[in-house]
Order: sequence, then structure tokens, then C-alpha cells
Amino acid sequence: VLDAALIVLTSKGFEAFTVSEVAERAGVHETSIYRRWGTRTSLALEACLRFADEALPIPDTGSLRSDLIELLKSVTQLLKSPQGQALLSVSMSIDPEIITVRKTYWKARFALASKIFERASTRGEFPAGASGDELLEALIAPLYFRSFVTIAPLEDWPTSEMIDRLFASYKA
Amino acid sequence: VLDAALIVLTSKGFEAFTVSEVAERAGVHETSIYRRWGTRTSLALEACLRFADEALPIPDTGSLRSDLIELLKSVTQLLKSPQGQALLSVSMSIDPEIITVRKTYWKARFALASKIFERASTRGEFPAGASGDELLEALIAPLYFRSFVTIAPLEDWPTSEMIDRLFASYKA
Repeated sequence: VLDAALIVLTSKGFEAFTVSEVAERAGVHETSIYRRWGTRTSLALEACLRFADEALPIPDTGSLRSDLIELLKSVTQLLKSPQGQALLSVSMSIDPEIITVRKTYWKARFALASKIFERASTRGEFPAGASGDELLEALIAPLYFRSFVTIAPLEDWPTSEMIDRLFASYKA
Repeated sequence: VLDAALIVLTSKGFEAFTVSEVAERAGVHETSIYRRWGTRTSLALEACLRFADEALPIPDTGSLRSDLIELLKSVTQLLKSPQGQALLSVSMSIDPEIITVRKTYWKARFALASKIFERASTRGEFPAGASGDELLEALIAPLYFRSFVTIAPLEDWPTSEMIDRLFASYKA
């Protein structure tokens, strides 16, 4: 059902996303979907979040710089993919249920990514008291900014340069 | 008419924005608005862009650091205001006309802001060959990211700290 939901979202966007189309594609009854997920929005969200978790694994390459490069590369690829665009179409909704879940989702994502910084602190690469969340947010924000706001090409953004510029300030 | 359009956008959002309501509030005929602006979208856009230009003056305080602090403060205030939320509701639209104008708008905004960096280069505060656009984009992106994506409080974002961290890397 979640696979089918992602396919429908990717091809139609969130506006035109219907439970009946997902049910037909997955070969189940609409009522089963409503029983399990409650609403069209919940179904769309779970499909997106499951996909995002798979598309954005937390890297463990042995150095903070290369962990950040890997993670930012996954985010860039996700935002450029049709599935990523589907995620955006859900995210851009002003549906209150989505706004609530989005907050929870991002807290969970940042908590997952904090492992990168814990490992880096253990290796002496990152000050134990510094906020990895803030560094990560500063690095991923321009990718979303370009996707959502300025509609500028992600591949022109100097991600590695920004990692080096910001990272240097945490080593000082 | 543009004042009336901004009021309607601010109270209703872009979805519910109608030319007839703007016409009534401004005391003009709907046909005059269509003759001048062509579409509902064009009218909404011009109202937003005029407001953004007024709300985001390009500072000239005598130092790059304080110019950046001023500019980022204006962006934060704009994003938190009801008018800023109206701007967001227009920006979040997937209307192709909005996507096209948005690209043009951001190029123009960055061109305006580049004066800050030209003046800073003249004062020897910023390397002449470095990209002020990129520094500025890295600094404002988290504010939009919080407004659009994570729905996190803007006042918790360490703007001045990020200015200092990034700015230091350009002085090296």
C-alpha cells in the first residue's frame, strides 16, 4: 500500500492524490486503507516518510567531513528525484495535520543525524559542546531553499565549500 | 489596488484571493484590474513584490557584518509578519507563472544585495573575487527553511553566530 501510495504521489502530486487510486493499484479495499491510516493525509505522509528514511541513510564513513558530504549528497539526490518532488508537494501543503507531523518528522531526522556528530566528538573532530544540529541545518537549508523558494539548480550550490567554511569555524 | 491586494492576501491567503474582492476594497472596476494586471496571479505577485521591496531595504551601515545583521533581521521580521505569511502562501503555489516570476524576483533581489558586498570589498572587508551571493544565500536559507520546511521558530536560529562563522572563512 505504501509503495502504491508513493507511486501515485510521484505521478500525480499531493493535490490529485486519492485513496481510491492507491487501493486499486495495491489491490486492496479502500476501507482497509482508511481503517489502517485514517486519512488520505496520513497515508501520503507515511509513504513519504518511509521513502525519506530509506533515501537518506545516516552515513558512517570514519570522518565528519565525509559523513557530511555523503549525507548532503543524498539530500541533493532526493530533492532532485521525482519522489523527492512528490515529498515536496506533500510538504508544501498547508494541511494542519501535515504541519504537525512535519515538526515531529524533522525532530526525529535531526536526532538520527546527531549520531554523526557524537561519533565525530569521540574522534576529537567536533567540539563536544557544539550544536551539530545547527551546523547540519545551516548546510541542508540552502538545498531546500533552492528547491522551494528560488527554484535554482541544486548542482550549482557549493556544498563541499560550505562544509569546509562552516566546519573550519567549529575547529577553531 | 496593490495595497488592497496585499490586505486581501494577508487576510485570506493566496488560495482564496479574488480579483473581485480586491476591486471592491480598492473602489475600482474588476475590468480595470484585469486590463492592467492581466491575471489574478500577476496582481498577487506585484502586491507581494512591492511589499517585499519596502520591507527589505538594502542596509548601508558602514560595515559588512552589521549590514548582514540588519538585512537578516529584516528578513526574519518579514517572514514572521502576517504579510510575510501571505508572501509565503503565494510563493508556495505551484502556479507556473509564479515559478517563473519567482526566479526573476530572486535574481533581482540578489543583484540589489550585491551592493553590500561591493561596498565591503572597497573597504577591504570582503575579498573582491568571492561570491557575496553565496554567503548571503547560506545565511538567509535557514530562515526560509524554518518557515517553509521544519516550521521551527526563527528566533531560535543563531543568525549572528552564523554570520560570524561564515564571514570568518571569507577573511582567511
